[in-house]
Amino acid sequence: MERLFNPKSVAVVGASSQPEKAGNVILRQLIGGSFRVYPVNPNRHDLLGLLCYSTVRDLPEKVDVAILSVTAAATLQAVEECVQAEIPFVISVAGGFSEMGGEGREAERRIAEAVRGSKTRLLGPNTMGVMVPGRRFDTFFLPKERSPRPKDGSISIISQSGSVLVGMYEMAEDHGVGLRACAGVGNKADLNENDFLEHLAHDQGTKCIGMYIESFADGGAFFELAKEVSIRKPMVAVKVGITPSGAKAAASHTGAIATSSDALVSGVFKQAGIQRVADDFELLDAAKALAHIGQIKGDRIAIVGSAGGFGVIATDYVASKSKGFGLRMATISEETKTRLREKVPPFASVDNPVDLTGVVNDQMYHEVIEIVQAEESVDAILLNLLFQPPGMTVGVVDVVERWARKGRKPMVVCCVGGSFPRPILRRLEEKGVPTYGTMRRAVFALRCLYERGQFLRRVKEEGPA
Amino acid sequence: MERLFNPKSVAVVGASSQPEKAGNVILRQLIGGSFRVYPVNPNRHDLLGLLCYSTVRDLPEKVDVAILSVTAAATLQAVEECVQAEIPFVISVAGGFSEMGGEGREAERRIAEAVRGSKTRLLGPNTMGVMVPGRRFDTFFLPKERSPRPKDGSISIISQSGSVLVGMYEMAEDHGVGLRACAGVGNKADLNENDFLEHLAHDQGTKCIGMYIESFADGGAFFELAKEVSIRKPMVAVKVGITPSGAKAAASHTGAIATSSDALVSGVFKQAGIQRVADDFELLDAAKALAHIGQIKGDRIAIVGSAGGFGVIATDYVASKSKGFGLRMATISEETKTRLREKVPPFASVDNPVDLTGVVNDQMYHEVIEIVQAEESVDAILLNLLFQPPGMTVGVVDVVERWARKGRKPMVVCCVGGSFPRPILRRLEEKGVPTYGTMRRAVFALRCLYERGQFLRRVKEEGPA
Repeated sequence: MERLFNPKSVAVVGASSQPEKAGNVILRQLIGGSFRVYPVNPNRHDLLGLLCYSTVRDLPEKVDVAILSVTAAATLQAVEECVQAEIPFVISVAGGFSEMGGEGREAERRIAEAVRGSKTRLLGPNTMGVMVPGRRFDTFFLPKERSPRPKDGSISIISQSGSVLVGMYEMAEDHGVGLRACAGVGNKADLNENDFLEHLAHDQGTKCIGMYIESFADGGAFFELAKEVSIRKPMVAVKVGITPSGAKAAASHTGAIATSSDALVSGVFKQAGIQRVADDFELLDAAKALAHIGQIKGDRIAIVGSAGGFGVIATDYVASKSKGFGLRMATISEETKTRLREKVPPFASVDNPVDLTGVVNDQMYHEVIEIVQAEESVDAILLNLLFQPPGMTVGVVDVVERWARKGRKPMVVCCVGGSFPRPILRRLEEKGVPTYGTMRRAVFALRCLYERGQFLRRVKEEGPA
Repeated sequence: MERLFNPKSVAVVGASSQPEKAGNVILRQLIGGSFRVYPVNPNRHDLLGLLCYSTVRDLPEKVDVAILSVTAAATLQAVEECVQAEIPFVISVAGGFSEMGGEGREAERRIAEAVRGSKTRLLGPNTMGVMVPGRRFDTFFLPKERSPRPKDGSISIISQSGSVLVGMYEMAEDHGVGLRACAGVGNKADLNENDFLEHLAHDQGTKCIGMYIESFADGGAFFELAKEVSIRKPMVAVKVGITPSGAKAAASHTGAIATSSDALVSGVFKQAGIQRVADDFELLDAAKALAHIGQIKGDRIAIVGSAGGFGVIATDYVASKSKGFGLRMATISEETKTRLREKVPPFASVDNPVDLTGVVNDQMYHEVIEIVQAEESVDAILLNLLFQPPGMTVGVVDVVERWARKGRKPMVVCCVGGSFPRPILRRLEEKGVPTYGTMRRAVFALRCLYERGQFLRRVKEEGPA
């Protein structure tokens, strides 16, 4: 699989000169990467400055990956030619297969048949393929202008929906979150989520694996694999199609048959150490905390901020029965309170949630974080940064980053607001500090970190499931 | 109260020449509104081109509102002078009162005493005051550069936390949502949430009332009042401080004693027809749907989009037991499916969720919405607009707006993605179409509309509670 994620040479079958065609967008995307690119189109001599080839059999070398940007009808022949050329990985972009039922299902069976027993593995059909930002390898057929790509990072995502994957990487890009790799598994005629999971489990650059699943290609194998992988790397997954209508919708989307009961999925995930999340947003929120922080060892949270109201909202999310995430508010010792009082104004609150009020500034955050970091009763810190107070500057990014790196207590940041703080938060995120736009999301991330910590402790004490 | 929200003249007591001081920010903010502004400062001859007065008693007219931007220690005297000058409304910005306990509580009692029985009503202390975007009346002491203000709209918000209110209006501004009025009630030494609720209930421009509540000044009176108001206008409220630690945090924030049990609050809200939401985000999400759409009469939702994965996610949120919002997926009739098939490509799905696939364009949305609007079995439509498909342009704003205005079935929009669609969504929102960045939020808004519809039906059938 390494050759699929890190190819030395790639071919674009169905490369096109028309800018709105997938075969053109993909070619443009690939040019400039650290691999050789060959357009394949029997009707063209050259494309975008590259010599064109009639078929993959005419290429000057055996490429690692061929991307088929041809119609559903032309896909079988293109796959067969790749098999003959012994190309190890073929990505089939076209829709119109098993998700259509009937004839589509039969056509998909035939392309699966074409690769069976050969030296060629097939990704798709009905997929956007693979994206590895750090290597500029990107087979997604959406132009960058409309769909900006994320930078390199440590989260990898496997998705059974191209659009949901696109939504996730665009959000990641928008917030400064880096991604290691994205893979859309499409209809899974050959390669499926298990193949990708196995590869990413061994990929050094991947610190957390996120999955969007509509159906399992082989649920049993997934479970066995995930049990091992999740011990080494945090896994977080969305399993959708949990209503009869949802399952029906999934079937007409990727031809998947989502038979597994919802409760069964939850049970299996729990046993395998996979954190189940509700949707694409929660996946990204959890993944960035897990990738950068890994775990927290206890459930005692300290909240530090400059606005009483948000302190109250956060407290409810930490600990309330009706909407809380089952964590506890840390009890700050009298000694720590005394130390805090020396650093904050008299009208500030040194109890948890710590409220520094509107006179807060970057330096006060530095001093207060230092003291709270040293408090024994605290397992993690939720920083509520607000940028309306005049003493707050972009300099707080360095303060927070320093403590996020060297402090013993993990920290996540929440900032509620409009457009003003956006670039500051982006910078924090780029420095590896998980940053959230709502209290709910920040506390949810802490909950995920806590569950991860509990899971790892259980594995250590009792051995794997 | 009309004079507080629509003053003819205002005084800023403690007006300052130093740009970072609240007394300067407030003065700058007020200049340019359609009312007369008088700075009051005994040590200055003039400020920002306006003649300064020594005390409020020296003003050339009896102003409607005096904003006191002076220290806690100087507040009592300033209030007394306003009482002597018979100024109807005084806003006290200073903190350092009952939220500090002890002496602060006593100081607050004295300023409350000073206005009792007088012609003066007091808002605060410990409040940012009032903002009415349509009238450029704005006493919030945060500079616009850091805290951009929303445009005029039809949602009004009463909040017991200044910061949470600021977070809400900044989010509203960022997303193009207009606000009619904002009021921070602060420590409620005199005026409280009930006074504001009563005023906004009669305010023509207010179509929905949102409230952030840490404690009730008079729970019984609130309940009686809300019962009447909620029949005329949708009310949506956050009640925080629902854990012992949360209540303690609320106490040190505004001196509030949050005694009411969480379950009791939920019961009372339900009986009074107030929709209870979890936080500031849900408040805004619900309020914009309620202000623009009002209600939906049934629970049958049609989902129309161009991405199968999001259709599945949305379906789960509509109808699943574990995370759904208790709505139903509409069953689209065979007749409607036949009509749809004529307008969409063969590989599109015309069942619910309708999936137009990546070949979608503005015109296809127009035709499909027209057909789904006419389907008897549909109560509301969730449009999942994505802007990666090349056929999608900003022109879809007009398509959606037209149908949102003239269609019989209410519509909300969801768009997941990065920075590219942001200005398009903002434009949609400015045209009064509720627009959400996640499926969960969009379906949550539909749920709020459905609950409102059920409440209004119950009132009609059974009379008020």
